[in-house]
Amino acid sequence: MPEVYLNRKEHFNAAHRLHRADWSEEENNQIFGRCANANWHGHNYTLIVTVKGKPNPETGFIINLKDLSSIIQKEIIQKLDHKNLNLDVPFMKDILPSTENLAIEIFKILDPLIQAHHAKLHAVRIFETESNSVEYRGE
Amino acid sequence: MPEVYLNRKEHFNAAHRLHRADWSEEENNQIFGRCANANWHGHNYTLIVTVKGKPNPETGFIINLKDLSSIIQKEIIQKLDHKNLNLDVPFMKDILPSTENLAIEIFKILDPLIQAHHAKLHAVRIFETESNSVEYRGE
Amino acid sequence: MPEVYLNRKEHFNAAHRLHRADWSEEENNQIFGRCANANWHGHNYTLIVTVKGKPNPETGFIINLKDLSSIIQKEIIQKLDHKNLNLDVPFMKDILPSTENLAIEIFKILDPLIQAHHAKLHAVRIFETESNSVEYRGE
Amino acid sequence: MPEVYLNRKEHFNAAHRLHRADWSEEENNQIFGRCANANWHGHNYTLIVTVKGKPNPETGFIINLKDLSSIIQKEIIQKLDHKNLNLDVPFMKDILPSTENLAIEIFKILDPLIQAHHAKLHAVRIFETESNSVEYRGE
Amino acid sequence: MPEVYLNRKEHFNAAHRLHRADWSEEENNQIFGRCANANWHGHNYTLIVTVKGKPNPETGFIINLKDLSSIIQKEIIQKLDHKNLNLDVPFMKDILPSTENLAIEIFKILDPLIQAHHAKLHAVRIFETESNSVEYRGE
Amino acid sequence: MPEVYLNRKEHFNAAHRLHRADWSEEENNQIFGRCANANWHGHNYTLIVTVKGKPNPETGFIINLKDLSSIIQKEIIQKLDHKNLNLDVPFMKDILPSTENLAIEIFKILDPLIQAHHAKLHAVRIFETESNSVEYRGE
Repeated sequence: MPEVYLNRKEHFNAAHRLHRADWSEEENNQIFGRCANANWHGHNYTLIVTVKGKPNPETGFIINLKDLSSIIQKEIIQKLDHKNLNLDVPFMKDILPSTENLAIEIFKILDPLIQAHHAKLHAVRIFETESNSVEYRGE
Repeated sequence: MPEVYLNRKEHFNAAHRLHRADWSEEENNQIFGRCANANWHGHNYTLIVTVKGKPNPETGFIINLKDLSSIIQKEIIQKLDHKNLNLDVPFMKDILPSTENLAIEIFKILDPLIQAHHAKLHAVRIFETESNSVEYRGE
Repeated sequence: MPEVYLNRKEHFNAAHRLHRADWSEEENNQIFGRCANANWHGHNYTLIVTVKGKPNPETGFIINLKDLSSIIQKEIIQKLDHKNLNLDVPFMKDILPSTENLAIEIFKILDPLIQAHHAKLHAVRIFETESNSVEYRGE
Repeated sequence: MPEVYLNRKEHFNAAHRLHRADWSEEENNQIFGRCANANWHGHNYTLIVTVKGKPNPETGFIINLKDLSSIIQKEIIQKLDHKNLNLDVPFMKDILPSTENLAIEIFKILDPLIQAHHAKLHAVRIFETESNSVEYRGE
Repeated sequence: MPEVYLNRKEHFNAAHRLHRADWSEEENNQIFGRCANANWHGHNYTLIVTVKGKPNPETGFIINLKDLSSIIQKEIIQKLDHKNLNLDVPFMKDILPSTENLAIEIFKILDPLIQAHHAKLHAVRIFETESNSVEYRGE
Repeated sequence: MPEVYLNRKEHFNAAHRLHRADWSEEENNQIFGRCANANWHGHNYTLIVTVKGKPNPETGFIINLKDLSSIIQKEIIQKLDHKNLNLDVPFMKDILPSTENLAIEIFKILDPLIQAHHAKLHAVRIFETESNSVEYRGE
């Protein structure tokens, strides 16, 4: 039975800031540069969720895209879209909102929910800009 | 000797429908939603074929892109472009045209043809829309 | 008071066919080529609606994007998405579904609805593929 | 002597909020929806500046792209990138940062600077997201 | 009878150099910068041709896209693709290959050919890179 | 400790030619086709560098993007941008500038430099055109 990867792309627009309260402003500026701006900045983030599994012989689906999209919308997008990643998002509380950390936390949330649909979460990719993106595969 | 992956992107525009004759209309609508529309709908599909191999020391090529593109055009695109995936495509006969199943069947056709050019088919990716895509690696 | 153009992009996936019943198959094939395929083909259409007006001094908006998007969704996208443009769409009845004709009919529907929101419909653009698009400005 | 339009695309990432202090929260939410989020949100903005003019017979240029890009970087991008449009940008002080208003203010700044290079500013376009954009032509 | 704009996008890959033999190297470097590199550089150019006209009542077409694409391929793309714009292209002989000049020369070639198909050439747009593009409307 | 992949996209515009001096013109044309054009042609190349590593607990970064971008700019882009890959690039001397060979040579240069920043170079991807790309993973 063949295994196929399925990718679903979603979008959210959010504000954030890279800054450590336990560092001096000098240290913050040296490491985080313009990303440390006191009054925040923001991005149009693109999220791509990859699920791996065997197509169901009756439907030809790894997972129904309606279900996959609903899970991502409810558990991730509604909590991130038009929010401040540092202040408004419970699952990012006390976590520096680098794209790397954001991908890891999203993976942790989606992994058991995808499993409950008899498929396997393979990867979470996030584009912060067209030029900068990360991928986390749960490894 | 290093191994390199080569990707070739092609396009086809096709109609299809997700529907099982052995299910009630209610079941079809519940699982396939708007994709079950009786009079079909369609997509601009994007196909990306990935070939793996060692660059030929004389040409620097894994496989000549002219050859790779010719194979994909002749064996896949000409059979899918401006067609109905449910009715017009011999290699999809009796197979539900989900993107997953389409990727698997395309892989089966291309795999021996790429081998005959001394390279290895690594993956077939299909974008049904900008948001929904699949990848099959022959595993 | 300055005048600004506002663009809103939406998507629909549909099947269609370019074919005249009053022409021979030979004539149909000569003029419409692969687009005349008897069992239909389809596209991921992109629709861009351009509205022109003066920003409201209180909101900074030409028209509220929520209202504009709702109008386009209700009057256009829900009638075209996952449909057959030749068979399923009342406003395209007896009209050959070329991209040109589709843009003209969409303009006719949206024009009075945008006016009712105190703005002016400037243009309707449709991308049938990434390479082929049309624009109608009501002239 | 022919007249040509030259387009230059630049990017900036910023936070903003659509909110009026003289309105109730209910009014703000009704008109601005999620864009009124108290802790801001943000976007990857794309700015396209269009200049019109006759190509210089010696260089073939309407305006030297190095000069055009320098002007846009110095006068616009450095003031907007990684900033909060409501709090950090002198030229947006007391102006609601809708995309429409942002385009108008950018046009006002660039217009005399382009004229000083013997060309004419034709339009300022801003994409707030891939789906939402505005264009201001100084009319 | 409504008038519609039809856009056709094509691609060509070419080498070029911005350099005047009657200037010193210093002048060339000051004005043309890295574009003056003695051994050339190159681009993936995108060409968009816009035709304006009334849809033919029988076909719904401004101009048959097969005819438009054939004209552009034969008269423009085959003469530019995988060529050196300074050395290999008869219609650019003795013309500095700025994107502005290239658009003007392409317009001159296509204008009478489009007219012979009972439509009007409205504009020629060329993207030299994703960030830099020009448009010429024959004015 | 989780491992994350970080991707950075950069661009360069270059001329090149695929041609072997030890082959007849006939052989060159048969294998390399239009890419053998005597006066060169060129591309807007896109380079994507993928680095793998564990996020630093203090910064949330695999590698600081400023450092990664500086390395790629200094060691790769400045040597390739607005250059001739056959004539101007020391690290491509005597190497046929196929995209495959270019990716391998870039990997060799970046690998030790990324290691010096306590991360691992995972892959180098190059898009020669939107349709043709390669990936080398150092295997």
